[in-house]
Amino acid sequence: MNKNMKLYFSKGACSLAPRIVINELKLPCEFESVDLKSKQTNSGEDFLKINPKGYVPVLITPNGETLTENAVILQYLADTTNNHDLLPPLKEFAHYEVLEWVNFITTELHKAFGALFNQQFPQEAKESITIPLIQKRFAFVNTHIKGTYLMGDRFTLPDAYLFVMLRWAKHFKIDLSQHTNLEKYFNELLNRPSIQQSLKEEGL
Amino acid sequence: MNKNMKLYFSKGACSLAPRIVINELKLPCEFESVDLKSKQTNSGEDFLKINPKGYVPVLITPNGETLTENAVILQYLADTTNNHDLLPPLKEFAHYEVLEWVNFITTELHKAFGALFNQQFPQEAKESITIPLIQKRFAFVNTHIKGTYLMGDRFTLPDAYLFVMLRWAKHFKIDLSQHTNLEKYFNELLNRPSIQQSLKEEGL
Repeated sequence: MNKNMKLYFSKGACSLAPRIVINELKLPCEFESVDLKSKQTNSGEDFLKINPKGYVPVLITPNGETLTENAVILQYLADTTNNHDLLPPLKEFAHYEVLEWVNFITTELHKAFGALFNQQFPQEAKESITIPLIQKRFAFVNTHIKGTYLMGDRFTLPDAYLFVMLRWAKHFKIDLSQHTNLEKYFNELLNRPSIQQSLKEEGL
Repeated sequence: MNKNMKLYFSKGACSLAPRIVINELKLPCEFESVDLKSKQTNSGEDFLKINPKGYVPVLITPNGETLTENAVILQYLADTTNNHDLLPPLKEFAHYEVLEWVNFITTELHKAFGALFNQQFPQEAKESITIPLIQKRFAFVNTHIKGTYLMGDRFTLPDAYLFVMLRWAKHFKIDLSQHTNLEKYFNELLNRPSIQQSLKEEGL
């Protein structure tokens, strides 16, 4: 009880999203990197004992409980700090609008990128199926950004997650130039202190 | 205001999960089927105007608001009825445990099945990548079922969703026989009135 929380991460992975939210909230938190190939943590622990699913992020709460799903970790971080900027209160419909974005990103974007990260996955299918699908999803986001941020003037949970997806798009040289709102949005996010700090902390 | 809610569904699709929860809660609800190929609803509406993403489920709330993400619709249904059997209250860690299961199913199982439903997807990759991945995910679930239901004695949101995934596994003739807990679990769910009713309503 009353210990700091701890985030297991891998450099540039989707665990960057909860790190951004942790920094946004200025929460005290310990960070430890994980080698996802050898399934060893930086301090030499067997990561599969921490998360049998073998993936990051993993958040250890101040009570020592373990969370292993990105979308739920984001929700937990906003709930536990009662931060209604990142996630509007339960009684407002905007609560679900924010969660819909988080869920869209985790299922439709993040999981689509999974194929690109998979070296076994046939190159031709990446080009004929995966990349057009990712483009279609980004096109949807592009036409639905409400303002400076996804939901309008306010930075909310899915902005942290979408930032990571846009970084991945650039990593895989996916052409985003036709999504002009997204380009502007990404550049705006790059200036946000919590994001600058998070990139610096991961050496990105 | 104060109208019934409405669920847009497609027979046997993942929209079966919110239908099960709606029946579990005995909520008044209108159901309308959608042809996902022609993007027309049963009454001849253009489904893309209802959900530009083009997929089901879509829930129209009694206030006329639209929700389009399965995991969020499930959470909304439990929240709005204040049903703490399906989803424990926010202050309990079990709240997040339930949401972790929902998120695991939507990202790791549901999205993996996406490749099997995609006729463009290379058959060889389905057999060498997709099915082993689905087997791995089911093996994880198999060793983590806590009781009659995923979380123990109590039927919670992810049970409805996992039931649909198990039906899909059978549809694609994925061999679940080594996952003995899952087989028992599936047979238990088949006896649950909300599930029997839902299958009957969709003519399954």
